[in-house]
Amino acid sequence: MAAHEPATLDSVAARAGVSRQTVSNVLRHPARVAEGTRERVLAAIRESGYRASLPARQLATRRAHAIAVRAERQQDGISGLVLDAFYHGLAEAGQDNGLRVVLYAQPADEAAELEIIDDLVQTGAADAVVLTATSADDQRPAYLAGSGTTFCAFGRPWGHDDEPHDWVDVDGALGTGLAVQHLLGLGRRSIAYLGWPGDGAEPSTGSDRRRGWLEAIDEAGLGTPVEIHSLNDAAAAEAAVSTLLAGADAPDAIVCASDTLALGAHRAAVAAAGGGTPTTVVGFDATPVAAALGLVSVAQPIDQAAHLCIDLLTARFESPDRPARGVLVPPVLHLPA
Amino acid sequence: MAAHEPATLDSVAARAGVSRQTVSNVLRHPARVAEGTRERVLAAIRESGYRASLPARQLATRRAHAIAVRAERQQDGISGLVLDAFYHGLAEAGQDNGLRVVLYAQPADEAAELEIIDDLVQTGAADAVVLTATSADDQRPAYLAGSGTTFCAFGRPWGHDDEPHDWVDVDGALGTGLAVQHLLGLGRRSIAYLGWPGDGAEPSTGSDRRRGWLEAIDEAGLGTPVEIHSLNDAAAAEAAVSTLLAGADAPDAIVCASDTLALGAHRAAVAAAGGGTPTTVVGFDATPVAAALGLVSVAQPIDQAAHLCIDLLTARFESPDRPARGVLVPPVLHLPA
Repeated sequence: MAAHEPATLDSVAARAGVSRQTVSNVLRHPARVAEGTRERVLAAIRESGYRASLPARQLATRRAHAIAVRAERQQDGISGLVLDAFYHGLAEAGQDNGLRVVLYAQPADEAAELEIIDDLVQTGAADAVVLTATSADDQRPAYLAGSGTTFCAFGRPWGHDDEPHDWVDVDGALGTGLAVQHLLGLGRRSIAYLGWPGDGAEPSTGSDRRRGWLEAIDEAGLGTPVEIHSLNDAAAAEAAVSTLLAGADAPDAIVCASDTLALGAHRAAVAAAGGGTPTTVVGFDATPVAAALGLVSVAQPIDQAAHLCIDLLTARFESPDRPARGVLVPPVLHLPA
Repeated sequence: MAAHEPATLDSVAARAGVSRQTVSNVLRHPARVAEGTRERVLAAIRESGYRASLPARQLATRRAHAIAVRAERQQDGISGLVLDAFYHGLAEAGQDNGLRVVLYAQPADEAAELEIIDDLVQTGAADAVVLTATSADDQRPAYLAGSGTTFCAFGRPWGHDDEPHDWVDVDGALGTGLAVQHLLGLGRRSIAYLGWPGDGAEPSTGSDRRRGWLEAIDEAGLGTPVEIHSLNDAAAAEAAVSTLLAGADAPDAIVCASDTLALGAHRAAVAAAGGGTPTTVVGFDATPVAAALGLVSVAQPIDQAAHLCIDLLTARFESPDRPARGVLVPPVLHLPA
């Protein structure tokens, strides 16, 4: 927190009574400098609090000592807090490892995003990227692998197991399985699923969450369960669940793929209950919205995921040719206070 | 998006048939190079897509071309989305101005934060800082001004008008004034305020929001209004509002300093209404929680504030000695869908 002028190569040189070039040599090529001189210069560096400039270190090491991550455009809003926690976790773990975290604004499409990443890496502004929101038709991992860009994905290589890369993801199937166990413990026996459109088809975050629900239902021997789908929009979810609850196969609980869906489902359940106890709804992401509504929700260990991304990247910097590694972290059920 | 090897000084030199030093001279000291050679080298640079490395540009310009901003620890959660939008706005406006945005993790206290900022600036990792969450007893602005660090605060210099610095803030008083106007339009006449402890005392975000409510009530000639205070916690707010609504001076509307307070107030109002229409609650920050509860809330123009912070910083880089400038941006009322 020293408020005085920062030490420079020149001030260190003056203090040690040597030339600026000698100080530079001590820092970059210590073997070129006689031992007595070297010790005098190192003492002057310690006393003056000199810190080599980051650009100079970057040029010397050919490393940016920085990773890039995308700042998302506002969309849904409800799940935004997951990324907030992810940014803090990356910055914290990065600082512990001498890595700064550089934000880039999410552009219109993947091609524009890859241009930004190329520019950051090729100009030496970042050594690596943490990709967020990966999907099965995501072109980014294959492109980055092809261009030799170091990256770690927060998200699995959905359906692209033949193109291995470093990734960290949350075990969504485990989360919805925990939700079903919780509901069984409450005595529910007809546990429906509210997922996203197409989440039964290709590998995705949605199909993973759906699978956990389905396997837990099968395991409990509860027969063929009901599932419906809705865009990730509270009003759309409310309409879909209203129809479901008015029908012959109305469930006594609903596991949802997101808190946004859970918000709509809960509204429909409250309306259908007409003052009575509404159908139990479980959400996903443990956002403040779920807490505000008093809903149980699956909490992703975002801070842990962020630290693991940094761990995988630092290990990759040390061993560029090591095999790709994926880490699946378990979520927990978050019960409202 | 080129996937081939990036061009280097050497490859540009080979292409132009000159030495590496000549290429460097064309970039840094073009007057030293004969015009014909210079044009040949510039053509080779264009053809090869060569981009000067960021560290080299940083060393040459003595500028990091980066600004730092704090990644917040998770606290309240409900208002986190405001920062999410702020990060995206900074990254977007930064990109438009050739500035990267570097995140640092919020440490334990202000002293530790100032050490981090000093380190980022003194090592050339950032040229400037955007300070968030400023307050009256904030030591950071005076320290940064004293150490000559360029910064812009997202937040006014509460009570420190004698220490001017660049800032952008949202006009909170205007926001709560709009809330009162809205409630008057609905026919409410007894409009209470739920604020934070001590928000009538020193200049602060809380006292500013309270002032807007009080001035609008005075202007409408509605007599002495009721105000209560609570920590920014939904359960604490719920308890405080329950007591208020059970008393003799129960209001018919409550303007709140935050959506967290509004959540607690709304819960208390629903409980007190016993199935009837609850007392109208207006929140602040227009978070998804307010939307989920169907509450009107004051929305801060966060994207605009972020762009203005970048504007002030770039103007400061161009004119380091220009007078300090503060910009107050107007919020809008957000009505639930």
